[in-house]
Amino acid sequence: MAGTAGKVIRCKAAVAWEAGKPLVIEEVDVAPPQANEVRLKILFTSLCHTDVYFWEAKGQNPLFPRIYGHEAGGIVESVGEGVTDLKPGDHVLPVFTGECKECSHCKSEESNMCSLLRINTDRGVMLHDGKSRFSIKGKPIYHFVGTSTFSEYTVIHVGCLAKINPLAPLDKVCVLSCGISTGLGATLNVAKPPKGSTVAIFGLGAVGLAAAEGARIAGASRIIGVDLNSNRFEDAKKFGVTEFVNPKHHRKPVQEVIAEMTDGGVDRSVECTGNIDAMISAFECVHDGWGIAVLVGVPHKEAVFKTHPMNVLNERTLKGTFFGNYKPRTDLPSVVEKYMNKELELEKFITHSVPFSQINKAFELMLKGESLRCIIRMEG
Amino acid sequence: MAGTAGKVIRCKAAVAWEAGKPLVIEEVDVAPPQANEVRLKILFTSLCHTDVYFWEAKGQNPLFPRIYGHEAGGIVESVGEGVTDLKPGDHVLPVFTGECKECSHCKSEESNMCSLLRINTDRGVMLHDGKSRFSIKGKPIYHFVGTSTFSEYTVIHVGCLAKINPLAPLDKVCVLSCGISTGLGATLNVAKPPKGSTVAIFGLGAVGLAAAEGARIAGASRIIGVDLNSNRFEDAKKFGVTEFVNPKHHRKPVQEVIAEMTDGGVDRSVECTGNIDAMISAFECVHDGWGIAVLVGVPHKEAVFKTHPMNVLNERTLKGTFFGNYKPRTDLPSVVEKYMNKELELEKFITHSVPFSQINKAFELMLKGESLRCIIRMEG
Ligand SMILES: NC(=O)c1ccc[n+]([C@@H]2O[C@H](COP(=O)([O-])OP(=O)(O)OC[C@H]3O[C@@H](n4cnc5c(N)ncnc54)[C@H](O)[C@@H]3O)[C@@H](O)[C@H]2O)c1
Ligand SMILES: NC(=O)c1ccc[n+]([C@@H]2O[C@H](COP(=O)([O-])OP(=O)(O)OC[C@H]3O[C@@H](n4cnc5c(N)ncnc54)[C@H](O)[C@@H]3O)[C@@H](O)[C@H]2O)c1
Ligand SMILES: [Zn+2]
Ligand SMILES: [Zn+2]
Ligand SMILES: [Zn+2]
Ligand SMILES: [Zn+2]
Repeated sequence: MAGTAGKVIRCKAAVAWEAGKPLVIEEVDVAPPQANEVRLKILFTSLCHTDVYFWEAKGQNPLFPRIYGHEAGGIVESVGEGVTDLKPGDHVLPVFTGECKECSHCKSEESNMCSLLRINTDRGVMLHDGKSRFSIKGKPIYHFVGTSTFSEYTVIHVGCLAKINPLAPLDKVCVLSCGISTGLGATLNVAKPPKGSTVAIFGLGAVGLAAAEGARIAGASRIIGVDLNSNRFEDAKKFGVTEFVNPKHHRKPVQEVIAEMTDGGVDRSVECTGNIDAMISAFECVHDGWGIAVLVGVPHKEAVFKTHPMNVLNERTLKGTFFGNYKPRTDLPSVVEKYMNKELELEKFITHSVPFSQINKAFELMLKGESLRCIIRMEG
Repeated sequence: MAGTAGKVIRCKAAVAWEAGKPLVIEEVDVAPPQANEVRLKILFTSLCHTDVYFWEAKGQNPLFPRIYGHEAGGIVESVGEGVTDLKPGDHVLPVFTGECKECSHCKSEESNMCSLLRINTDRGVMLHDGKSRFSIKGKPIYHFVGTSTFSEYTVIHVGCLAKINPLAPLDKVCVLSCGISTGLGATLNVAKPPKGSTVAIFGLGAVGLAAAEGARIAGASRIIGVDLNSNRFEDAKKFGVTEFVNPKHHRKPVQEVIAEMTDGGVDRSVECTGNIDAMISAFECVHDGWGIAVLVGVPHKEAVFKTHPMNVLNERTLKGTFFGNYKPRTDLPSVVEKYMNKELELEKFITHSVPFSQINKAFELMLKGESLRCIIRMEG
């Protein structure tokens, strides 16, 4: 790989030229990494709702042309000035939120919201010089959340790359780059259900099912899945969900239904819908005295969380989390090890796989709600 | 004392005959304790806002005639059937919320909200038989929160009595019966500020000052007091408060003022006002990534806690607590020891003292906002 270091690499990338229009595979030029940057070869990437959401560009500032993609696994091709933690050949997972290791968040044991490298969906350029590393015939193409993994090569800040065990199969562990770690960590790092406890999971998409997987790993005795779509229950059983509630099938608010099922409320709840009503129900369905509710879903801009303050005073706890409270560089390698030890199953999240040339198929599957995760194979 | 066991005791009690009218010292008959009950001689009692609130009876079901009082220290006179934990002569603090040691809350390490003996402000009778132990010429007088300490003798469920070190001066430690433990525990048991952290305290009444005292004991480096009444700041300095903010002196919301003072927010906040705006500000003024806000104040029935869910998602935690999360029987004896070891100062909370005959003076002082705690001496 040393032959390409310092030079522009011409390769294939899936470019979004316009909001909601199919991506187009183009030949793009990828500039060499600058200070604190790394260029890597992407081997596998997968599609997450966040890509689809910003590609549809409903309600945000549209930024096009852009290369999406943030769940992936790759190999370092070359490194920029000042990069000492990574070298060509290292296996890495890119992460949409970084870890500079120097800010107050990185120094705090509790936070993973790095001040420097926290997710920024509006910025389409690199931090170092405010420029893009991608171009087509000299015209820049924007980056997405600092990762842009829908490209054979991409350039990423070293703080957004987790170095992982080179024996880990990248076509599986690439899904730990975003959604699966988010749900898993929300349960294991934040809700922390004690063994034998009852857990409610709101939303049984990939994130919610990963949260359920976390509850299963933690040894929860009952895992109650809540979704407006009853079809989700069949799949959810594979992830440890033992009971199912569809709020549409009840006249009472779902928090009351759950309180009746559990003698006053669940011990823990994890909300993975992005819907404000589900957030409020997830909080109000936990038991007074000790219940903890964790919000994961990304709400609408205008959403307002409302509850009677007595629900708080009665010793309930409300928390939120971002990327499952994992610090990407420090913690992600150990999540990969959980998979390697067979503590965590990833295969059941991967429902589809397509070659890079058919990346638009992955969008269709997700939009139709048919896939949990669709792996996009860069070679082949 | 054995001479009175099993017999009715005639003694003095301060009876509230009507809402908001001065209490009247009357001769009352105090029946012997029934199963799981204890009769005690009250030596010192103090006045808390909750007494005043229910005596004023604005907005609740009025229940008169009634004997108020729930902060006190006393000595066991006799015990009812089945009481094995206490015997005549034991020194005890009555608590408005109990600990049965058998329900799911009592068995949980996290909760102190006993299902059986949780505070009930509507009930004016004993649990055992639904009757009062107080009467005047055969006419029952109602109990208040299971304690009714404005009487020389009272009958209390054994689960609402903490047995304490007999060497502890009851005229001081009686204030640990309610407000001071509530504020102290909110900080020490729930907010748990790390050494060197910044803490905001909303409301500098007795509860808030006890919360500040907790922050001082925990080694907080900055304790920011927030109150609408600037006069509170002078007193608050004695409780470790280092800076003061009066929301009325700023155009911006107080959470923004605090964020500017602290580079993004405080590490912990404790709300001790009962005001919903203060509750929201207390939550929104904690730092993202790691901040924890604890609600203590009792809100109005119609109050609604509102915030943008992103404030939660950005890794802030919201908690509520009741009696500072202390389990009364298990934990209160060790709080008394904190005073005995001089770790905790109580003298500075006690601003006044009156004989029982002048109990109405204690009400006046509190209503005028002149006292923090006024001790009522039953003898003398
Ligand atoms: N905090 C983070 O770091 C982070 C990271 C990734 C994703 N997310 C968010 O997590 C959420 C879930 O992501 P996903 O990929 O699993 O989405 P998804 O769309 O696949 O799944 C969401 C599920 O929630 C269900 N749902 C919607 N409203 C509901 C309601 N009121 N009650 C019950 N169920 C309801 C839907 O039917 C669906 O099955 C999204 O909001 C996403 O933006 C957050
Ligand atoms: N959770 C429990 O177990 C428990 C136990 C005892 C008391 N309490 C509650 O704690 C609260 C405080 O009790 P206290 O005896 O110290 O009361 P207090 O009236 O002496 O003090 C309250 C203080 O809050 C201030 N305040 C009011 N609104 C404010 C606002 N918007 N912003 C800033 N300051 C404001 C007032 O000026 C006052 O100084 C009350 O609500 C009481 O009911 C709760
Ligand atoms: Zn950082
Ligand atoms: Zn994602
Ligand atoms: Zn109990
Ligand atoms: Zn009180």
